Amino acid sequence: MTSTLDRETALSDLDLARAEFRDRLVDAGLLVRSSLDGLYGRSGVFEDVIDVIDTAVRAAGRAAHGSSAQRFRFPPVFPRESFEKTDYIASFPNLTGAITTFSGDNRAHAELLAARSAGEDWDHFLDSAGTMLVSAACHPAYSMLTGDLPAGGTTLDVYGYCFRHEPAVDPARMQAFRMHEFVQVGTPDQAVEHRESWIERGQAVLEQLGLDASPVIANDPFFGRAGRMLAANQRNENLKTELVVRLYGDLDEGTAVVSCNCHREHFGHTFDIRTAEGGEAHSACVGFGMERIALAMFRTHGLDVTRWPEALRPA
Amino acid sequence: MTSTLDRETALSDLDLARAEFRDRLVDAGLLVRSSLDGLYGRSGVFEDVIDVIDTAVRAAGRAAHGSSAQRFRFPPVFPRESFEKTDYIASFPNLTGAITTFSGDNRAHAELLAARSAGEDWDHFLDSAGTMLVSAACHPAYSMLTGDLPAGGTTLDVYGYCFRHEPAVDPARMQAFRMHEFVQVGTPDQAVEHRESWIERGQAVLEQLGLDASPVIANDPFFGRAGRMLAANQRNENLKTELVVRLYGDLDEGTAVVSCNCHREHFGHTFDIRTAEGGEAHSACVGFGMERIALAMFRTHGLDVTRWPEALRPA
Repeated sequence: MTSTLDRETALSDLDLARAEFRDRLVDAGLLVRSSLDGLYGRSGVFEDVIDVIDTAVRAAGRAAHGSSAQRFRFPPVFPRESFEKTDYIASFPNLTGAITTFSGDNRAHAELLAARSAGEDWDHFLDSAGTMLVSAACHPAYSMLTGDLPAGGTTLDVYGYCFRHEPAVDPARMQAFRMHEFVQVGTPDQAVEHRESWIERGQAVLEQLGLDASPVIANDPFFGRAGRMLAANQRNENLKTELVVRLYGDLDEGTAVVSCNCHREHFGHTFDIRTAEGGEAHSACVGFGMERIALAMFRTHGLDVTRWPEALRPA
Repeated sequence: MTSTLDRETALSDLDLARAEFRDRLVDAGLLVRSSLDGLYGRSGVFEDVIDVIDTAVRAAGRAAHGSSAQRFRFPPVFPRESFEKTDYIASFPNLTGAITTFSGDNRAHAELLAARSAGEDWDHFLDSAGTMLVSAACHPAYSMLTGDLPAGGTTLDVYGYCFRHEPAVDPARMQAFRMHEFVQVGTPDQAVEHRESWIERGQAVLEQLGLDASPVIANDPFFGRAGRMLAANQRNENLKTELVVRLYGDLDEGTAVVSCNCHREHFGHTFDIRTAEGGEAHSACVGFGMERIALAMFRTHGLDVTRWPEALRPA
């Protein structure tokens, strides 16, 4: 049994371990700190490691789906109209990023600048730009599937920047990071099969990268009181499995680097996507957290990539 | 002499040409439309063309700077503290993207959801997240240079997503697009030399990609009345040269696909960057507009990449 004091000490050790890892990454020139937690520049070497990871991810995608997975790349910003259909503001309001801009005239601009010169806040001079930051790489993809799917459903390969407002010391909890996803949209069975089969494939990719990962039944961090029930349902229905690497030893439960999710009819319903048989489409995705996998590799193989196992060393 | 009527007809022809080009790109599956102008998904083939372009850009960078250009990749979001130092909100408020998020409690969230259910606006439930969308790829880089530069200055290779709120029918005017930049920070002479020398190098890259481009003295679209003077100064002092490709024949002045800019002491001053000699640092950059170059290639070589000249064909 752990006393309150023990737990507080453990928490503090974890925070120290996270800060120490971050500082080592920064000192090694792999990440560049900004004035905010969770926002970093990446060095060329860091990006080379991302490429090594992506080569393995793409190979796994080809092995699983041949050339049937259609590649799409979306920018980090997408229409609020699509965002609304994801229901993200209901489940994760605190992680959301909405875009505002200035749409006033010369006079309003002069007022904004006067407020700014006086050291005052100038946000109230801005209005919604009608756009949102992308929270999960697959979110911008669903609106293009509205209507009837082809027989056999659709497999997508999407890769892009995601935003989550959760400033943290842990370098593995970034506000902006990349996710490479394979998404299946089709029948309920296809969605379940996609999620299940990618647990093993994801494990194989991580093994190939020299990482020691374990699958864990998980839930999304749904917001607030109502969110607790959603999280419990997600676990009970076995909709989310994360592949977890222990970046900080026994100090926490580990860091999720890959996530295998079944969305059931959530996106099919709100985006009005139907299977060739006429049913509401189900969907599932596997998401590779590219920065987190890179950090796990630095943690496992060391910060000096020239000393990594030859097969993993960036060109 | 052009009558008002002629000019109106010409404007309409230009809009038609832009809409037709956009529709052809969408019909060919190269771009995916969203519900907003200027936000598109990119197909795998479109991304392969981006890779072809980037291979040429990187080779030009190596030829110019050897291995001295340090590579950095920044996410599409950066701290408002750095954004403030760029003075972008003074010059381009209408293009700006500020991030807001929800930081309230359960009760405030319930109110947000109630407003949303009632079809009302819910933006006023959000507060600043302290972050901004990146407007130019080099903007997040300057804060890491605060202090004294090494002797000889610093050369950076930065590549990332940029955001500008300017919804438009023209597929070449995207709200979110990528820019690959080489940035020089050092003495006034180094900055001038960097800008000048990249005009020719940029031309050579575009020629290599089979594009017919011309250098044009240009200015940024500074906002409002005060902006007109800034624009005139920029032209008079010869601080900006754009490499322009005519996507729409004689219907307009052409589309800038590469931009060579001298910032003088603007960033050196606000980010407090000093040369090894102790002076205020000057800076200059060349920016390759990756999507615009890709569109110019589709316009020039056709929408079917399998019929492109062999040297340009994606693998």
